Amino acid sequence: MSTFNIALLPGDGVGPEVTRAAAEVLQAVADRFHHRFVFDTQLIGGAAIDATGDPLTQETLVACRQSHAVFLGAVGGPKWDGGSRRPEQGLLELRKALGVFANIRPVLIYDALLDCSPLRREVVADVDLVVFRELTGGSYFGEKRRGADFASDQCIYTTPEIERVARAAFIAARARRGKVTSVDKANVLETSRLWREVVTDLHAKEFADVRLEHALVDSMSMQLIRQPRAYDVILTENMFGDILSDEASVLGGSIGLAPSASLGAEGPGLFEPVHGSAPDLAGRDRCNPIGAILSSALLLRYGLRLADEADAVEAAVERVINSGARTADLGGDIGCQAMAERIADEVLRSVSH
Amino acid sequence: MSTFNIALLPGDGVGPEVTRAAAEVLQAVADRFHHRFVFDTQLIGGAAIDATGDPLTQETLVACRQSHAVFLGAVGGPKWDGGSRRPEQGLLELRKALGVFANIRPVLIYDALLDCSPLRREVVADVDLVVFRELTGGSYFGEKRRGADFASDQCIYTTPEIERVARAAFIAARARRGKVTSVDKANVLETSRLWREVVTDLHAKEFADVRLEHALVDSMSMQLIRQPRAYDVILTENMFGDILSDEASVLGGSIGLAPSASLGAEGPGLFEPVHGSAPDLAGRDRCNPIGAILSSALLLRYGLRLADEADAVEAAVERVINSGARTADLGGDIGCQAMAERIADEVLRSVSH
Ligand SMILES: CC(C)[C@H](C(=O)O)[C@@H](O)C(=O)O
Ligand SMILES: CC(C)[C@H](C(=O)O)[C@@H](O)C(=O)O
Repeated sequence: MSTFNIALLPGDGVGPEVTRAAAEVLQAVADRFHHRFVFDTQLIGGAAIDATGDPLTQETLVACRQSHAVFLGAVGGPKWDGGSRRPEQGLLELRKALGVFANIRPVLIYDALLDCSPLRREVVADVDLVVFRELTGGSYFGEKRRGADFASDQCIYTTPEIERVARAAFIAARARRGKVTSVDKANVLETSRLWREVVTDLHAKEFADVRLEHALVDSMSMQLIRQPRAYDVILTENMFGDILSDEASVLGGSIGLAPSASLGAEGPGLFEPVHGSAPDLAGRDRCNPIGAILSSALLLRYGLRLADEADAVEAAVERVINSGARTADLGGDIGCQAMAERIADEVLRSVSH
Repeated sequence: MSTFNIALLPGDGVGPEVTRAAAEVLQAVADRFHHRFVFDTQLIGGAAIDATGDPLTQETLVACRQSHAVFLGAVGGPKWDGGSRRPEQGLLELRKALGVFANIRPVLIYDALLDCSPLRREVVADVDLVVFRELTGGSYFGEKRRGADFASDQCIYTTPEIERVARAAFIAARARRGKVTSVDKANVLETSRLWREVVTDLHAKEFADVRLEHALVDSMSMQLIRQPRAYDVILTENMFGDILSDEASVLGGSIGLAPSASLGAEGPGLFEPVHGSAPDLAGRDRCNPIGAILSSALLLRYGLRLADEADAVEAAVERVINSGARTADLGGDIGCQAMAERIADEVLRSVSH
């Protein structure tokens, strides 16, 4: 029986509800596959500001560093708007501290949910793409200035920062359909020109077997909904990745379904649903836990290297979706907790390969 | 008989074809409504680099300044990639020189084209929104740096820059459904926090009769395709506007249909289709001239204050679309020139109110 330490950071809004859901499914995995998961629940975001004044405490950071993997719910909300410390700072500091530079956001399309997509069935059927978003650089972390009547943000990238996330994307493409679409705004931004050069060089030197194409971010935001099947791995910088991955999450019917994994060169990875804290839904058992549960599957796969266990969670989610169970975002009336229980039950009942 | 000087900047790729199309329709307006339009055709972009080494020559700039309105086709293409001067610099310098800070991109949905949209009919029917994009600030014009292994772009905004485009958006909303959605990334960017403050203040002081809401850019890229009918005027900064307006252009079925107007406090406005130079379509009479022709309608309306004439062009486009004529982007086989001729004919035949 192997023991794994998992840090749980519920955060704000619907964060605690979806974290509970993910933990329940992880516990079912432990029971079914005979592991021991030790959960360590810690503060982050607005909840941490309320308790300590700080969106990321030393205690939380130490717990994350001592874990095998970190699960995060969501941070932020109007309650903390205008304060001197913002919930989001906690998340950004955590990403930076853990060095999780590659944010992986798979876009999954379930046949049973094709009619929930705002896009036509024939446009989204069989879409299978993943966004690799650079997560610890760009305008999220560059110098910010504020004067009496101006403000500025600096977007800065170094060659090694671009290279390491591009390498991760190329490697992922090899295990998929062998294509990377690198997205930038090279006709306007200097950082994008460097981005394009570095990606092109790395491709020529190490990944000539992968197909590489470049796209401008404005064009990509259009093509992503015109012909999403044309894409396999989409690689881009932090802000463009934030925008494009939210857009892409709609293809499957609801952002509530979308998971993410953030990985670094070493140390624990960070796993969080793509959706935000959704303050209007919080505490009402109305949110969709599937994005969080699929993030826990990514935690099993990439964080703990438990591939069979990850497969079991993903298969359980698919079976429950196929059974017709739907949360409110997909037009149904099943609550967050009931949905999590169904998926946990399916995991317990799953047969090993 | 009134005389108007119109500068025509065909540019690159399909730019010359769509400029010819727009000029033909403008000539039909002149004939039908008894005006005199004096066209002055000038170089810009890659074409200007090839001829003079400079993407925006003094001669072009003088011609634009002496005109009542400027029409631009498109700039850029792989031919000029990696050169020391880029076609796009010419366009950016022109926007800056003319001071056209408000880029207006209406999203029009034609009933007859509902089935060309990648979105479901029930999602896009009756959408009626316009994007107000700030056009002369942000990371397009901030300081760019490049070192041996890094690059940076600065995004900078001043209070007056934000205020003037926000004012234009609020005024437009008053004449529409009375709602402005201001888009930023205030949970991360300092410029966005200033943006939100300035828009909020201006709203309270001068436009309390307009409804104002704020949205985060990642969420907006999602909502724009989930519930586009929820929006009236979308106000945002330069780069976010570039991305969101291209995304929005898909709603109507093709970016080839989308027009834009860029206006300043005084002096000639700049009118250009939203689509790019589409090098793969260039010279093949395959592109859609409607985005350009509708841009010429905006030129008539905002540039020359000829509202009846603008109405006549827009009505002519609608009649031709309703007749079933379709260019390749919409699945048809009518050429760019033939489409322009049909629309020009309709203008000539149009009856005054
Ligand atoms: C909460 C916010 C800072 C965050 C981001 O922009 O990275 C979120 O939108 C995300 O995509 O994880
Ligand atoms: C050609 C390019 C510089 C331009 C921009 O980014 O503004 C274009 O994409 C547009 O939207 O007009």
